[in-house]
Amino acid sequence: MDFLAEEKNKFSAPEGLPTKYRHEEVHRFIVDCMVSVGTPPPQAGALADLLVAADLRGHFSHGLNRLEMYVNDMLKKVCAGGATPVIAKESVSTALVDGRNGLGPVVGNFCMDLAIKKAKATGVGWVCARGSNHYGIAGWYAMSASKQGLLGMSFTNTSSLVVPTRGKQAVLGTNPIALAAPGVKGDDFVLDMATSVVSGGKVEVACMKGEDVPAGWALDKHGAPTTDSQQAMDGFLLPLGGFETHSGYKGFGLGMLVEIFCGIMAGAPYGPNIRDWTRTDRPADLSQCFVAIDPSFFAPGFEGRMTDLMSHCRNMESEDPQNPVLVAGDPERLHMRKVEREGGITYHINQINNLWKLGKYLGVTPMQA
Amino acid sequence: MDFLAEEKNKFSAPEGLPTKYRHEEVHRFIVDCMVSVGTPPPQAGALADLLVAADLRGHFSHGLNRLEMYVNDMLKKVCAGGATPVIAKESVSTALVDGRNGLGPVVGNFCMDLAIKKAKATGVGWVCARGSNHYGIAGWYAMSASKQGLLGMSFTNTSSLVVPTRGKQAVLGTNPIALAAPGVKGDDFVLDMATSVVSGGKVEVACMKGEDVPAGWALDKHGAPTTDSQQAMDGFLLPLGGFETHSGYKGFGLGMLVEIFCGIMAGAPYGPNIRDWTRTDRPADLSQCFVAIDPSFFAPGFEGRMTDLMSHCRNMESEDPQNPVLVAGDPERLHMRKVEREGGITYHINQINNLWKLGKYLGVTPMQA
Repeated sequence: MDFLAEEKNKFSAPEGLPTKYRHEEVHRFIVDCMVSVGTPPPQAGALADLLVAADLRGHFSHGLNRLEMYVNDMLKKVCAGGATPVIAKESVSTALVDGRNGLGPVVGNFCMDLAIKKAKATGVGWVCARGSNHYGIAGWYAMSASKQGLLGMSFTNTSSLVVPTRGKQAVLGTNPIALAAPGVKGDDFVLDMATSVVSGGKVEVACMKGEDVPAGWALDKHGAPTTDSQQAMDGFLLPLGGFETHSGYKGFGLGMLVEIFCGIMAGAPYGPNIRDWTRTDRPADLSQCFVAIDPSFFAPGFEGRMTDLMSHCRNMESEDPQNPVLVAGDPERLHMRKVEREGGITYHINQINNLWKLGKYLGVTPMQA
Repeated sequence: MDFLAEEKNKFSAPEGLPTKYRHEEVHRFIVDCMVSVGTPPPQAGALADLLVAADLRGHFSHGLNRLEMYVNDMLKKVCAGGATPVIAKESVSTALVDGRNGLGPVVGNFCMDLAIKKAKATGVGWVCARGSNHYGIAGWYAMSASKQGLLGMSFTNTSSLVVPTRGKQAVLGTNPIALAAPGVKGDDFVLDMATSVVSGGKVEVACMKGEDVPAGWALDKHGAPTTDSQQAMDGFLLPLGGFETHSGYKGFGLGMLVEIFCGIMAGAPYGPNIRDWTRTDRPADLSQCFVAIDPSFFAPGFEGRMTDLMSHCRNMESEDPQNPVLVAGDPERLHMRKVEREGGITYHINQINNLWKLGKYLGVTPMQA
C-alpha cells in the first residue's frame, strides 16, 4: 500500500454519508484537494472540469475516482502540477508540444485549443504532445472542437495491457480513439472508445461482483484465454474484435494507430516502454494527439447531414423494444439527463467514504450534499 | 443475370487453362479489357495498377475478381471512365474534390497526390472526394504516402451491409480504414481493415464451402443472429466487436467515423442513401477521404521508432509456434514473397475460366501463362 493510502486510512469516515452531490460541489472538492498539494488554482480547475465532466457523462472510472491518483502524483512530485506546455515545433497546420510533465488536462486543453485555432485558419490542425500525464476522457478534447462547430479527434497512449493477436504478453495500452462531430441544435456524435474489447474497469466490476467475464475479453497472466474475472484482472485484455476468428488483429491495428499518432510521432515512450501505471517513481511521459477539422472547408451543410444520419439510426427498429438503437454519445447524454433529473451525481458509498478520508488527510472540507 | 454475364456465358472456356500468371500479364489483360469498353489507356492503367496490387497482396476479392464489375459499369455508362477529377474547394491543407464520376483509382490517386503535396508543405493534407466509384483496396492510397516517407490514411463509404448494435437492418457499409506508416529500409505498417467483424468475402467463401460461420459475424435478413453461411449471405454483417457484450457498438462507431469523413463531409450520399452495390442503374456517387501527414513536422526519428515497435511485436512469443505474431501489413508481405517465389499469381480455375470468357466477349487476348 502506498504512503497516501496508508495515511488516509488512519481516518474513519462517519456512518451514513450522503451519496448524491451537486457537480459544482464535486468540482470544489477536487480543486481544494489539488490546491492543498501545491497545484495552482487554474491547473486544479482544468483537472476538476474534466473529472466532473466524466462523472456527469457516466464514465465514473475516469472521474472523481481518479482524484487520488492525481493527488498522489503531486505528493510524489512525479507530475509538475504548475507546469504550462510549450510549443516545440510548429507549422500553420501542425504543432509538436512539450507538456513539460504538466497535468494531462492542462496539456490536453492547450493542444486542442491550438489544433482548433489552426483548423479555423487552414481547415485542419494536427497537434502531438509528449511529456504529458493521464488526461482523463479522450472525448473531452474532441467535444471541445465540436462545441465550436468543428470535428475533433483525440488519442492517447497508456500503459501496456493489451495483447496482440497470437501474443501472450501486453504490448499496447487500451489506447482510446475519440471523435466528436456537431449535429444541429446542440446534437452531436461523440465516439470515445478504448481499442480493447472492454476497458480494465469492466473487468474490475465483474471481479468485485464475483462474476465471470465473457470469453473473448481477456487472457490470464500466462496469455491463455480466461473467463475468470480475477485471472483476467491479473492478466491482459484482448484488442477490439477479441480472438483471431473475430478479427482481434483489427483492434490491435487500431491500438497501433493510436500509438503511432502518440508516442511514435511525438518522439517519446511508446508501447512496452511506457511506465507501468501503478508505478510512480518516474514521470508517466505519456503522448497524446489532437486533431481539429473545420467542415466549412468542405461541403456546406455538414451539421444537417450529421443529424439526419444519427436520426436514421435512432429511429430504427430495435431487436429489444426496451433498449433503442443508440448513436455514439447517446448513453452519455442519457446519463447527463438522469443527473439533472435527480439533482446531482450519485456515487458508490465506498467511493464517498474513501474521498472523505482523503479530504480529512489533506485538510480539505469534505463534499457537502 | 445481367447483360454482360449472359453474353459472356455464351462462350465456353477451354479445359485446363493455366492458373498462374505473371503480374505484368494480368495488368495487360485488365488494361485491354477496360480500353475495349472505351476507357482511355491512362485511366485503364491506373485501375490495373490497383487491381494487380490487390492480388499481389493476397486481397483477391479486390483484384482481378472485380474487373467484370468495372467493365460492366463502363458498358452501362454509369461510370465516366475518361473523367478526370477537379478541385471544388481548396486551402493550403485541405481540398474538396469532385471525382466527376471517374474510375475510383483515378479519383483516389488524384486526391492522395494532392494530400501528399499539401502535407509536404504544411505537415498535413486532408482531402475529401465526392462523385467517386469503387476505389479498390484502401491501403493502396495510404501506401502511396508511406512510400514517400509520410503517413497516409484513406477511408471510403460503401453500400449498406452493416447493422448497428441492437438494430435489425443495415445502415452503413463495411467502410474501411487504412493507415500506412514507414519504417526503416522499406519496412512499413499497413493497416487496411473493414470496420465489420469480417468482410462479405469471408462469408461468401464459407458459403461456397458449405461451412457455418462463427457466431458473432452476421445476422440473417430478419436481423437475428445466424451461423448459417447462406442466411448470413442473404443477411447482414455485424460491426467489429460483434455483439453488444463484446462492444460491437465500437465497430459501428468506427464505421460512422468513416462515413463522417466521407459522405457527410463531402456532401454526397451517405449510409442508407448509398446505392445498393448490385444496382447499376445510376452512378455509385461514393465519397472517399485521404489524409497525409509528414512526420518530419513532428519529432525526428519516426521511422526508427516505427520499426522498433514492429520488431518488438514480431519477436514476441506466439501462442502457436507455427504462427508468429504479425504486424498489420505482414500477411500481405508474406503473400507478395510467395508470389515472387512461385513466379506468378495463382488464381482459382473458376475465376480464370470466367475471365477467359470475358476476354472472348470483349475481343481481348486471354491471359497468357
